[in-house]
Amino acid sequence: MNPPPNLTDPLVLFMPSGKRGRFPKGTPILDAARQLGVYVESVCGGRATCGRCQIEVQEGHFAKHKIHSALDHISPKGAKEERYEKIRGLANGRRLSCSATIEGDLVVDVPQDTVINAQVVRKAATDRAIERNSAVQMCYVEVEQPDMHRPTGDLERLKAVLEADWGWKDLRVAQHLIPEVQKILRKGDWCVTAAIHKDMEFSRATLIALYPGLKNEAYGIACDIGSTTIAMHLVSLLSGRVVASSGAPNPQIRFGEDLMSRVSYVMMNPDGREAMTKAVREAVNGLIGKVCAEGGVDARDIFDCVFVGNPIMHHLFLGIDPTELGQAPFALAVSGAVQGWTHEIGIAVNRGARFYMLPCIAGHVGADAAGMTLSEGPHRQDRMMLLVDVGTNAEIVLGNRERLVAASSPTGPAFEGAEISSGQRAAPGAIERVRIDPATLEPRFRIIGSDRWSDEEGFGEAAEQLGITGICGSAIIEVVAEMYLAGIISEDGVVDGTLAARSPRIIQNGRTWSYLLHEGAQRLTVTQNDVRAIQLAKAALYAGIKLLMEKQGAATVDTICFAGAFGSFIDPKYAMVLGLIPDCALGEVRAVGNAAGTGALMALLNRTYRREIEDTVRRIEKIETALEPHFQQLFVDAMAIPNKVDPFPKLAAEVTLPPRRTAPDETGQGDAAPRRRSREERAARRGR
Amino acid sequence: MNPPPNLTDPLVLFMPSGKRGRFPKGTPILDAARQLGVYVESVCGGRATCGRCQIEVQEGHFAKHKIHSALDHISPKGAKEERYEKIRGLANGRRLSCSATIEGDLVVDVPQDTVINAQVVRKAATDRAIERNSAVQMCYVEVEQPDMHRPTGDLERLKAVLEADWGWKDLRVAQHLIPEVQKILRKGDWCVTAAIHKDMEFSRATLIALYPGLKNEAYGIACDIGSTTIAMHLVSLLSGRVVASSGAPNPQIRFGEDLMSRVSYVMMNPDGREAMTKAVREAVNGLIGKVCAEGGVDARDIFDCVFVGNPIMHHLFLGIDPTELGQAPFALAVSGAVQGWTHEIGIAVNRGARFYMLPCIAGHVGADAAGMTLSEGPHRQDRMMLLVDVGTNAEIVLGNRERLVAASSPTGPAFEGAEISSGQRAAPGAIERVRIDPATLEPRFRIIGSDRWSDEEGFGEAAEQLGITGICGSAIIEVVAEMYLAGIISEDGVVDGTLAARSPRIIQNGRTWSYLLHEGAQRLTVTQNDVRAIQLAKAALYAGIKLLMEKQGAATVDTICFAGAFGSFIDPKYAMVLGLIPDCALGEVRAVGNAAGTGALMALLNRTYRREIEDTVRRIEKIETALEPHFQQLFVDAMAIPNKVDPFPKLAAEVTLPPRRTAPDETGQGDAAPRRRSREERAARRGR
Repeated sequence: MNPPPNLTDPLVLFMPSGKRGRFPKGTPILDAARQLGVYVESVCGGRATCGRCQIEVQEGHFAKHKIHSALDHISPKGAKEERYEKIRGLANGRRLSCSATIEGDLVVDVPQDTVINAQVVRKAATDRAIERNSAVQMCYVEVEQPDMHRPTGDLERLKAVLEADWGWKDLRVAQHLIPEVQKILRKGDWCVTAAIHKDMEFSRATLIALYPGLKNEAYGIACDIGSTTIAMHLVSLLSGRVVASSGAPNPQIRFGEDLMSRVSYVMMNPDGREAMTKAVREAVNGLIGKVCAEGGVDARDIFDCVFVGNPIMHHLFLGIDPTELGQAPFALAVSGAVQGWTHEIGIAVNRGARFYMLPCIAGHVGADAAGMTLSEGPHRQDRMMLLVDVGTNAEIVLGNRERLVAASSPTGPAFEGAEISSGQRAAPGAIERVRIDPATLEPRFRIIGSDRWSDEEGFGEAAEQLGITGICGSAIIEVVAEMYLAGIISEDGVVDGTLAARSPRIIQNGRTWSYLLHEGAQRLTVTQNDVRAIQLAKAALYAGIKLLMEKQGAATVDTICFAGAFGSFIDPKYAMVLGLIPDCALGEVRAVGNAAGTGALMALLNRTYRREIEDTVRRIEKIETALEPHFQQLFVDAMAIPNKVDPFPKLAAEVTLPPRRTAPDETGQGDAAPRRRSREERAARRGR
Repeated sequence: MNPPPNLTDPLVLFMPSGKRGRFPKGTPILDAARQLGVYVESVCGGRATCGRCQIEVQEGHFAKHKIHSALDHISPKGAKEERYEKIRGLANGRRLSCSATIEGDLVVDVPQDTVINAQVVRKAATDRAIERNSAVQMCYVEVEQPDMHRPTGDLERLKAVLEADWGWKDLRVAQHLIPEVQKILRKGDWCVTAAIHKDMEFSRATLIALYPGLKNEAYGIACDIGSTTIAMHLVSLLSGRVVASSGAPNPQIRFGEDLMSRVSYVMMNPDGREAMTKAVREAVNGLIGKVCAEGGVDARDIFDCVFVGNPIMHHLFLGIDPTELGQAPFALAVSGAVQGWTHEIGIAVNRGARFYMLPCIAGHVGADAAGMTLSEGPHRQDRMMLLVDVGTNAEIVLGNRERLVAASSPTGPAFEGAEISSGQRAAPGAIERVRIDPATLEPRFRIIGSDRWSDEEGFGEAAEQLGITGICGSAIIEVVAEMYLAGIISEDGVVDGTLAARSPRIIQNGRTWSYLLHEGAQRLTVTQNDVRAIQLAKAALYAGIKLLMEKQGAATVDTICFAGAFGSFIDPKYAMVLGLIPDCALGEVRAVGNAAGTGALMALLNRTYRREIEDTVRRIEKIETALEPHFQQLFVDAMAIPNKVDPFPKLAAEVTLPPRRTAPDETGQGDAAPRRRSREERAARRGR
């Protein structure tokens, strides 16, 4: 227990945490921060050599005209700090908190350097200031030399000073270091920097790496292993800065485009699991090489790695056979957070580096959904928040501080452009935006790789260069929604063949009708079957969301976050017009990018987020749609556009919707009628 | 807190621990044992299937005529226990303590199966009952099947039942098991046996192996890595029985006979350390194969390994460069106990097996000395106990419950037969026992491989078969002592040339004289230089002991334990006649065999011994002879036989010693004078 503060002592306020306390004059600011639990990095342990403990005294800059200038309230630079400034430089206004002492009331700004770089890939982390408290701490110490009078081992003397100087009691030592310690101590002339990993795996802090002299660098990676794309951030654990971000395709695609075909590959091939594990780990290593090259970082300086991924990626990456995830009861091998040594899973970073993988929520709601939850924080606020990550499987989380529910819904691959006649992956030349004139039914569109609309000057050149090759996932939503808004399809999704009289774009296709979007080297149409595929996908998503809303007893949601690549590129308006998501003020629908990756980044930079997401995942109620008899009815009801039963007053306030007709008669639509998939078929199609 | 016992409840006394308590009628005996902290093994968790919890009710056998027959005080066999007896058999008087309940006062005998087998090698463990509490526990559980309503991972459900049934909270899982758990659970139809390692390394119990169904076997090895011989015990961790014991030569001998030459090899050869580490680990693996074959045990059923060894063996085995141990200040890389995964040091047992290496005491007093201390237990008793392990370096521990001091003394290799003109290693044909008739000066002797003395009938045949090839270490002591007792050498160690007139066995050899022990295919003599070498060695040992006695303020010691191969074969009487050890009642001088290995065995069978020896080693005061100016004087004084300053009244009471003469004049003995080695020379010769 600290003694009660003397009210005549100076008051110090730390920002951005807001923590405050009174300290006797002469107290180093770093000590005050430590006592208040404000995380200020320090590697050299107060020797004014590492420069990691820099702070700014806000009032010195922003309130110069106040009666008490901060310059009187902080000690002038001493010899050590001046030496540091001379050798390493010190930005204007920055001070070393280990050397600067409190001499009066102060507002101390602890810089949070987390600035996300320009994103190279589409899976982007959002800008977000994350208070640092990483699992790795670098500790410089000066070790007592051996003494024949007291013959303790070199390692024991190292541990003793790490306890005396840094408070690491009962430190564990990574086994591979034991043969190295003696030589490193001598190489550093008894001055070494210890990398200490302080996460929970062993209930004890662990020495994971040791360097001669002062080692002033420590990095980590946060990685989202998606089934299509692997995205990675390289982060300085000492400054919190994202040094580089990059992405790479998941090479497992060669074993199967979607998750279920990869599970099938494992079931069919005795070495299938091993081959896919190897492929994804190699890709992760390749990406580590890429971000390290980009950031000018040695991969051996990476000490901590955080991974997220859907359950099947999670299992394959950890070397677990995912077969059980392909069949009821979809049993996860492990659902809790997994920690371990990176070298045991073949990740090429520091030999002593650790990894942490976020917990999975359920058999189809993975560590990526946990990452998204951690990032967007429904559990940290009061409003009814809906999180959706759309892939082959949609992962859905709904709730607030009080209660969270989660489910996955078998949307199938239509949203990704598969099973769509003119669909393709997002790539240059793919149509990504569509508008249809309700009067003429003429479309205009944009393709990836060009900023211009198809009716703008200069578009032709781009189109010639790139080609107009297909319709990507986000544009499928848009074109179907625009077809609905233009009256080309009814709210039950039937292409109105009578319009052929008005426009040559309505063309017959056997017993049904299609809409001709583009005629060129390739003929791009939206067929009745395409519309049906989108209807089935959106009905599955909407029914899943609706089920969770019912579980929550929520008639509406307050805010919607769309995560993932799909979420980043669709226009929320069209998503709502089609009825993918429930009614909500359009301003409250956000694309949150690669929220799973952002969650991994948070867990990397601040280990308290690990406990937070572990606790949260334990609390989340998991709903299995296949076990809910009501889900079938919700699914049928959701086939209509926007859907059959729900009004969309907030959407209607912003978008002119076609007049609602009576419920369509499902009979008599020939082969254009949406066929309800059997439960088995849908189960077999699961996976993102 | 347990409620206060009801005094009308039956009283149960557990033997051999003597723990007792009152329990309500109907309490299973196993539960009573658990509540009292009496260690009774159980794998199946009370299902009466593993049979590991067998106990005997003593009174039932030994006190049948008492009024209260124990048969009334214990429940009759129920259906489960009878089924077990029918299938697996139950020895007469044995009961399953999980099924048998307390029905009246009882004396319960918990069988301690630790019986050391006939020893194959000379490094023998002594018979000793060790109460079992190994670091490994086998726990059978029935795991809940996956349920889509509660989608926890298979691993989480396994952990949950291990907590519910066995009390393992917050269990850690060995990383390599994570991909295996799911398949093992299914293979065992949700019934599995978990091997739990509960030593301190992680502050948490760790799941290290998992088996489908009931796994009723668990083994460990205790291994002493000597510089010459590696000795190993294979032990059932469930019954405590030593299943097999064996030994093998240390293949590092090809890099150098003694320790210092091995350190030199490392210093001279860039890959020297690696080559020697590989050699010793391969030898340990070979020995594991041997004891497993002998015991009919699968090496994959070995879950725990305990190692001891001198500091250089300790370092080389762990992969640590021992160079620092070859030069002042003789810094150990690590002095505390080392724990780790066997697979990381290349030991071929179960993939999840752990190892424990006892702490080292000082740069020349290793984990073997710690093992000897643990085995003989000076810290557990009040008398002044001297422990000596003689090799190239003698390791000496002296003290009692109050205080322990330890040192090493550079005896050199003379005691092992090196530097002795006719010396050789202990092997068939080597002379191992010698007697000299004081009247005729004629010798008689025995050789290894024959039971007969050289003057007995039938010796000739054996000698013809085996040859008479040299004098082994133990016989060197004996022959020099006998030469002294026969008056051939004076108390200052000079061979009396005048005796040549009396016996042809006294022969001239330049300016000095030798004693002819045997004339045959090889001529075996004991030269003046041989006597000097023994004098130097024994002076070093005695001076070391004397120094520790001075530190303790002890004029005499109460009991002496001679450990190691040398200690097993020398006759304590001759050791005392020569003045290797201080005066002591001969009955109090014991050869304790491979006490280091016994210490390892204790630490294997009962993990509380690990804490005990760690605490004890921390308390031991380490004396560095090289830093003690007084050591030189003690060394000089100890050159005489038995020595210059100490009376040996207890020895004199049992052995007729030659009359003590005045202190000899060291000058004028020509090249026969013992040359005092420089401190550097001795330091360079260190090692056992």
